[in-house]
Amino acid sequence: MADAYAAAGVDIAAATRAKELMAAAVRATHGPAVLAGMGAFGGCFDLEVAAPGATGILVASTDGVGTKTLVATAMGRYDSVGQDLVNHCVNDILVQGATPLFFLDYVAAARLEPDHVAAIVGGVATACQALGCALLGGETAEMPDVYAPSGFDLAGTLVGIVTREAMLPRPDIAPGDVVLALPSTGLHTNGYSLARRIVAQAGASYHDRPAILGGPSLGEALLAVHRCYLTEVQVLRQAVTLKGLAHITGGGVFDNLPRALPAGMGATLTRGSWPIPPIFRYLVEQGQLQEQEAYHALNMGLGMLAIIAPDAVTAALAACPEACLVGAVRATAGVELCD
Amino acid sequence: MADAYAAAGVDIAAATRAKELMAAAVRATHGPAVLAGMGAFGGCFDLEVAAPGATGILVASTDGVGTKTLVATAMGRYDSVGQDLVNHCVNDILVQGATPLFFLDYVAAARLEPDHVAAIVGGVATACQALGCALLGGETAEMPDVYAPSGFDLAGTLVGIVTREAMLPRPDIAPGDVVLALPSTGLHTNGYSLARRIVAQAGASYHDRPAILGGPSLGEALLAVHRCYLTEVQVLRQAVTLKGLAHITGGGVFDNLPRALPAGMGATLTRGSWPIPPIFRYLVEQGQLQEQEAYHALNMGLGMLAIIAPDAVTAALAACPEACLVGAVRATAGVELCD
Repeated sequence: MADAYAAAGVDIAAATRAKELMAAAVRATHGPAVLAGMGAFGGCFDLEVAAPGATGILVASTDGVGTKTLVATAMGRYDSVGQDLVNHCVNDILVQGATPLFFLDYVAAARLEPDHVAAIVGGVATACQALGCALLGGETAEMPDVYAPSGFDLAGTLVGIVTREAMLPRPDIAPGDVVLALPSTGLHTNGYSLARRIVAQAGASYHDRPAILGGPSLGEALLAVHRCYLTEVQVLRQAVTLKGLAHITGGGVFDNLPRALPAGMGATLTRGSWPIPPIFRYLVEQGQLQEQEAYHALNMGLGMLAIIAPDAVTAALAACPEACLVGAVRATAGVELCD
Repeated sequence: MADAYAAAGVDIAAATRAKELMAAAVRATHGPAVLAGMGAFGGCFDLEVAAPGATGILVASTDGVGTKTLVATAMGRYDSVGQDLVNHCVNDILVQGATPLFFLDYVAAARLEPDHVAAIVGGVATACQALGCALLGGETAEMPDVYAPSGFDLAGTLVGIVTREAMLPRPDIAPGDVVLALPSTGLHTNGYSLARRIVAQAGASYHDRPAILGGPSLGEALLAVHRCYLTEVQVLRQAVTLKGLAHITGGGVFDNLPRALPAGMGATLTRGSWPIPPIFRYLVEQGQLQEQEAYHALNMGLGMLAIIAPDAVTAALAACPEACLVGAVRATAGVELCD
């Protein structure tokens, strides 16, 4: 049986098997707003059912999980990167004030291993279901010669909705406003090329359990799931007027906090005022990273920053005890760490 | 100057340069419905401005352009794959009856070459602008070790809108209905792993100009832009009742036409009733492809199929002279080619 397509390195049957394996997990995310099942050319989402009377603003974000996929491959664990991806995208639209409606994923590799794809998309579906967000569609692609043999990529797009009144950041952010931090679980989805290089140069294995990590292996600490701050942000918004949010991703706190601030303003953050997960201490020590480069490449424990008025601090910390008061907005540009 | 991140193979400055280069092209796609510029965490699209009073259904599709990116790299031409991607996604939501609202792109490679990224995203923006679709956001990712050195991937997500009444396919598709074809320009975004293997096995270069192509080089014929059928579909919908559409992508006419038909129905298509671009004849000859495998892996000239009632044929062909009457719906499953 000649099968020219399989000979060219594209296994359509494998893709079909992967789709069957993940179909149930995907369907579990489908509330009444989802009209079409898998297999349609496009996913259909009834906005009137999801948000009756909505005259809202759609907020959309596309992201990937970067080379965290290589750690997942090395550890043989494929579900958590799916959760990482969804949570990353949710945090990005939270910053605009929006809440999630639906998600679409994209998985590509030189060759698709159906079990792996099913685990990846299963993780995407798990995270979507936990948030009440529909996994509306997606695409899997086998691309021999584009991808390295053991690599895979995972990206996705989230669409959410917000009313004009609820949009963030608010225009009244001012010097003297307070910066709260919601702690990160680890690197989230950022800095993995650097982290992998440091681990490799240290001659370490992802299965090593350095004492500094206090239990988990390097691979486990690096695969810690990107935390979703939907609940915390909802709690904070009910308790106080939230003026702005910054999701600390690529470029670290230096690049991301200013995106939430009016032009020309900056912030001062006080060292030691938030917990830094041990994996960061490991990377800074082993990689001999300067503070500036560590905070540029990594979130260093600052998962999401929230900006509130000084008189809202007590109520905010009462509503969300995990939040840390880490600094203040200032009238000059730039983000500075101080003692 | 130590820069740990650059040493790890991630050039943030290069990514920044690429963003500046493409910013103008992206902004040109932004109509009054787009609220936030580039640099925000998520793109904001005011549905009330775009579709006042809309109580519609959002239709979303994620797709990639597959290994067509490798032909683009070989030819040093990066803009057309951006157009391919948008047009592919638009055709996918047309099948649901929807029209495009906004698009987000994802470009990833082992290393981002700013000029190439700018050309790719410029192509995405060109296609979006031609369709009145906002390029709302996107992501670029440098992923050393995930991608092969010369490979890049390009995927994207389109969100469109449709009223419940205008959704396709309609439930009244019946045996005896007519199948029209809107011709393709070439492979569109499907079958490139097979095509590249055939070209390699033939010992041909993408710069060769085989007589069978009638002028263009192999690379030019393979990079022909994925045709967008928005205009033709709008013309057909104004002229007649369009019952269903099938975008012929991965799996060819055999897998895609049935997705537009009620369960159990199939179709018979008459060989020779539509034009087959020369690139398909080249691939079939050089690859010694059987008819079944050619039509499974490639669109073979059938870009988009439309299903209408027999009494609508005259009006449809008058409105859209390029359409070809290629077959009919039948009561038994499967798609068959006949003489």
